Amino acid sequence: MSTTQTFRVTGMTCGHCVAAVEQEVGGIAAVSDVAVDLASGQVTVTSSRPLTIDEMTTAVDEAGYELAD
Amino acid sequence: MSTTQTFRVTGMTCGHCVAAVEQEVGGIAAVSDVAVDLASGQVTVTSSRPLTIDEMTTAVDEAGYELAD
Repeated sequence: MSTTQTFRVTGMTCGHCVAAVEQEVGGIAAVSDVAVDLASGQVTVTSSRPLTIDEMTTAVDEAGYELAD
Repeated sequence: MSTTQTFRVTGMTCGHCVAAVEQEVGGIAAVSDVAVDLASGQVTVTSSRPLTIDEMTTAVDEAGYELAD
């Protein structure tokens, strides 16, 4: 059983930004897949349990970007 | 004796882009320093001999960006 959630991340401008977000969010133990759409900032995360806003905020911050409200 | 040249690179949007250009241009054997200004795209290169446009074009291309005319 997996959960898919969608978040919006601001500040990404290029493929390197996308890779940084994918790496940090993908580093959360429960996460099995991360798909980032650069144009919209939409980040779709598939995980074995629902992620909390706090853990997504932390991962996105570590990548150098911001989770939108 | 060192030479300082200034080039303009288009397409850089963030610090990752700057780092990619610095790494590729810094990888040219004669180069001792690379300074990139993201806002203007200006790349200032210090090297032990004058660089050719061809070698700068190649390095910038490898980083994924374009040398402006």
